[in-house]
Amino acid sequence: MNLPLGYRYATLYAGIRKVEKDDVALIVSGAPASAAAVFTRNRVQAAPVRLSRKHLAASRGKVGALIVNAGNANCATRTGDRVALECCRAVAKQLRLPVTQVLPASTGVIGVEMDAAKITGNAARLAASLSPDGFDAVARAIMTTDLVVKVAAADVAAGRGVVRVAGMAKGSGMIHPQMATTLAFVLTDAAIPVGALRGMLSRGVESSFNRLSVDGDTSTNDTLVLLANGASGISPKGRDLVAFEEATTKLLQNLAQQIARDGEGARKLVTLDVSGAKNGAAAAAIARAIANSPLVKTAFAGADPNWGRILSAAGNSGAVFDPSKVDIRMQGVPVCKSGLAADFSEEELKQKLGAADIHVEFHIRGTGKGEARFWTCDLTEGYIQINASYRT
Amino acid sequence: MNLPLGYRYATLYAGIRKVEKDDVALIVSGAPASAAAVFTRNRVQAAPVRLSRKHLAASRGKVGALIVNAGNANCATRTGDRVALECCRAVAKQLRLPVTQVLPASTGVIGVEMDAAKITGNAARLAASLSPDGFDAVARAIMTTDLVVKVAAADVAAGRGVVRVAGMAKGSGMIHPQMATTLAFVLTDAAIPVGALRGMLSRGVESSFNRLSVDGDTSTNDTLVLLANGASGISPKGRDLVAFEEATTKLLQNLAQQIARDGEGARKLVTLDVSGAKNGAAAAAIARAIANSPLVKTAFAGADPNWGRILSAAGNSGAVFDPSKVDIRMQGVPVCKSGLAADFSEEELKQKLGAADIHVEFHIRGTGKGEARFWTCDLTEGYIQINASYRT
Repeated sequence: MNLPLGYRYATLYAGIRKVEKDDVALIVSGAPASAAAVFTRNRVQAAPVRLSRKHLAASRGKVGALIVNAGNANCATRTGDRVALECCRAVAKQLRLPVTQVLPASTGVIGVEMDAAKITGNAARLAASLSPDGFDAVARAIMTTDLVVKVAAADVAAGRGVVRVAGMAKGSGMIHPQMATTLAFVLTDAAIPVGALRGMLSRGVESSFNRLSVDGDTSTNDTLVLLANGASGISPKGRDLVAFEEATTKLLQNLAQQIARDGEGARKLVTLDVSGAKNGAAAAAIARAIANSPLVKTAFAGADPNWGRILSAAGNSGAVFDPSKVDIRMQGVPVCKSGLAADFSEEELKQKLGAADIHVEFHIRGTGKGEARFWTCDLTEGYIQINASYRT
Repeated sequence: MNLPLGYRYATLYAGIRKVEKDDVALIVSGAPASAAAVFTRNRVQAAPVRLSRKHLAASRGKVGALIVNAGNANCATRTGDRVALECCRAVAKQLRLPVTQVLPASTGVIGVEMDAAKITGNAARLAASLSPDGFDAVARAIMTTDLVVKVAAADVAAGRGVVRVAGMAKGSGMIHPQMATTLAFVLTDAAIPVGALRGMLSRGVESSFNRLSVDGDTSTNDTLVLLANGASGISPKGRDLVAFEEATTKLLQNLAQQIARDGEGARKLVTLDVSGAKNGAAAAAIARAIANSPLVKTAFAGADPNWGRILSAAGNSGAVFDPSKVDIRMQGVPVCKSGLAADFSEEELKQKLGAADIHVEFHIRGTGKGEARFWTCDLTEGYIQINASYRT
């Protein structure tokens, strides 16, 4: 994995989470980077989300450092705003940055006061240990119930050179497509102005993180930050910029898929393709309803070709369509034609549904051109076990 | 349980479901009854739902018989309309009723053709075995994954006499508050005109079956029928009619609670009370979001006083409220005050949350008078086990 130039990383265990595993991470850009970010749409927003918005506005999209912790969401906390600000201040002081160029992000339990000293007291140690090699260590430090480190990277040709883009994400439960989902940080050494970066991120998120669901719950802390520090000395233009956006969108989709595949208790990644809907919004609504149906998701866990549940879930989406025009395929096998059972071998399909990658196509004939691709996972006993015991 | 006068019942095993357990039921009113009904709002509607609507319109709300089966939903079936009609015709012929006075209802698997002969061939036997004592047998025959028979009854004073109302319901999964949920039949021997009956049912459903969620999935077959045959000779008026409506609403709420308590895999009935919201719709939206959150429901399964998940779920409801004005109580214990952790003994509360009845109060201070009561259940491994294997 070729990492983008001009970024350094540090992690350490500050005692915020119970298990002794790095829980604080610092990402620093050599020169302040152009930044774009999307945040949770939950009405309840964690203190670091609110402060990040404020800092981005004040700095006009310039970011020098990200200070991140796992183990405590710093949400619904009395001291939340002060703690988030103190953490940024401590980092800014070490790095000689304006405080508004530092963004905080937190993930973990809600409603427990966070001890600022665990980060402020470690700011000097973090700054001293910054290294260009710590990308994966950061990706590991931000994990909570994640089982798998989620990173992706790409090289993109631009002019006579190459720019690099690399991303990491964490997230496994409380995952639902509303704006950014979970924590994700994407870094590039391309030089891109803030305005262009914002457009790129908002388009990219629409077809990646907003098309992802594990359990239909949107967290209070979701944050996705895209930084472009220009350390490559290359500023992609025209077709190069388009190519860069395509690569970045693919990277975001790749991370979103990794999150669905690592959904709490999940054993399967389910890719849903809805087509032929009245418009894109209707297609997305249908895909979302299917992706969020516990009955559909448990059927996948049981390798059960239960297309009736898929049709019924789509019927609950609010989208207007004629059920008698619906064709459904699972693993390429037609299971429903014109809203009725197709002739297929249940035993053979059941075997195909044992795979770790499930593909469902939901097509409406003669209605429109609305399309949406969505990622979700199966719902297993593991989800219950993890969430009935988490926190206590 | 005092059953309403003038109704007779019959059940038998017709081989529609695999297990040898009655799967067809007939409810007959001595004289055609006034009828009101509500049906699923799912875009995908089963053939018996469509035919019931048609018959109610054609008969102007007069119903002589209900023919119900479990084991096959007769939904997304090639022959569905014809099968539903043939079943009604066979019953109408036996009972010498106009076919439009017979309503069909089905529950079970979606997308499998239903063999009409299993009902038409048994119509004579059903008619011959009608008896006033079969109410509970019908309630059992309509069960699918239900573990518990769900019935309720009340006597209501009216004038110098008493009228009786009795109801039954089935439902355990694919339960979500959109119009009627599941199958439910409520019978009374009061004489009530169709118009009044319809108003009564639509108000009653709003505060009972529409405030119920097991898994957020609305079935394709949901049907709730209320029959009033006047066999008591009493026609409640004025205050008596109000008392009758109150008793009927309570009965509907009682059945809704029974469904939540018997939710697939559920070990706990959770009663949510939202108050202080901007208006009733906002309160209902908040209650619904909490009731449908898998994270909240798994926390209940684990007896975990995780109020952060409740606050976060409410934040996803779309309702506008200020999180810093929210107070939450669980089992009467304040766990969140002004959006922040209250001081409570986690160990003591954890013990209280081991109960089979959980009460959650979500109050917003100084905002409005919107209130809603909602019923749901915990989400356990049992739900997964049932639904990963059902059908195949």
